[in-house]
Amino acid sequence: MDASAAKLIGAGIAAIGMGLAAIGVGTLFAFFLSGALRNPAAADSQRPNLIFGFAVTEALGIFAFLVALLLLFAV
Amino acid sequence: MDASAAKLIGAGIAAIGMGLAAIGVGTLFAFFLSGALRNPAAADSQRPNLIFGFAVTEALGIFAFLVALLLLFAV
Amino acid sequence: MDASAAKLIGAGIAAIGMGLAAIGVGTLFAFFLSGALRNPAAADSQRPNLIFGFAVTEALGIFAFLVALLLLFAV
Amino acid sequence: MDASAAKLIGAGIAAIGMGLAAIGVGTLFAFFLSGALRNPAAADSQRPNLIFGFAVTEALGIFAFLVALLLLFAV
Amino acid sequence: MDASAAKLIGAGIAAIGMGLAAIGVGTLFAFFLSGALRNPAAADSQRPNLIFGFAVTEALGIFAFLVALLLLFAV
Repeated sequence: MDASAAKLIGAGIAAIGMGLAAIGVGTLFAFFLSGALRNPAAADSQRPNLIFGFAVTEALGIFAFLVALLLLFAV
Repeated sequence: MDASAAKLIGAGIAAIGMGLAAIGVGTLFAFFLSGALRNPAAADSQRPNLIFGFAVTEALGIFAFLVALLLLFAV
Repeated sequence: MDASAAKLIGAGIAAIGMGLAAIGVGTLFAFFLSGALRNPAAADSQRPNLIFGFAVTEALGIFAFLVALLLLFAV
Repeated sequence: MDASAAKLIGAGIAAIGMGLAAIGVGTLFAFFLSGALRNPAAADSQRPNLIFGFAVTEALGIFAFLVALLLLFAV
Repeated sequence: MDASAAKLIGAGIAAIGMGLAAIGVGTLFAFFLSGALRNPAAADSQRPNLIFGFAVTEALGIFAFLVALLLLFAV
């Protein structure tokens, strides 16, 4: 296998990482919504934690997307 | 393996990432529905969080779909 | 491996993504049914959220199916 | 397969590690948010544990990202 | 495949191990935070157990990182 083929397969594999990160983000919002529906009055107070947690989790998925784009267009 | 073959396999592998993202989106709605059925009166107040969480989770799956389409048609 | 063989393997791999998406859809309906059986009176009020969540989760599986069909017939 | 191709596939595989780390980070914040919404008064007292746990979990994902970047640009 | 290529793919695979270890670390802190928010008065008494559990779990991820670095630079 030469490099021009390998980077295409590598980009496809990197897409698995994006999907896995989506499980993390989905779980994060799932538990927040579950808790917020049990105690709606406190939902606003925890929104900063929600946004911070979402940002750092999504970042890992974006990194995987970045690796895929680097493989497709930059390497 | 040459590049014309590798991009077809890579696109197939990227489809795994879409499926994994669907687990995240499904979990998100699952917990929301579970909570909304326990406390229906609060469901409307949490809909913005639901939509925001859905959008960012689905985005990671769409990114994987984008990688598959790039592999199939753009590279 | 030449391209005519690779697209057949790629289509098979893409089917993994469909199966993973089914986990997401199944979880979604599972939690809805669990909640609806605990509080049947509220089930109708949450049906729009159920249908919306199901549609966007199923869409990711349909995208994987689309990639498989593109690999089989369009590329 | 020669080394210039192998490092591109290796970078793609390393992206799976990032996605898996995102599941860990997402679970961590998910349980914190769930607990904080049940007992908002105690949320601030546990924030140092949250940040410490997040940092060491995210670090493992960053290490995987580092391996991907090393494979892409440094080896 | 020759050895110079195999070690690069091996390093990428080792990064999957880091991500899996991150799931373990994240779950560990997730359950600690969940319990600490339910009973904040006892959280300090369990911190040594938290740190010990974190250290041995993180160590396995660090070992995977070490294997990746050994594959990249030492072998």
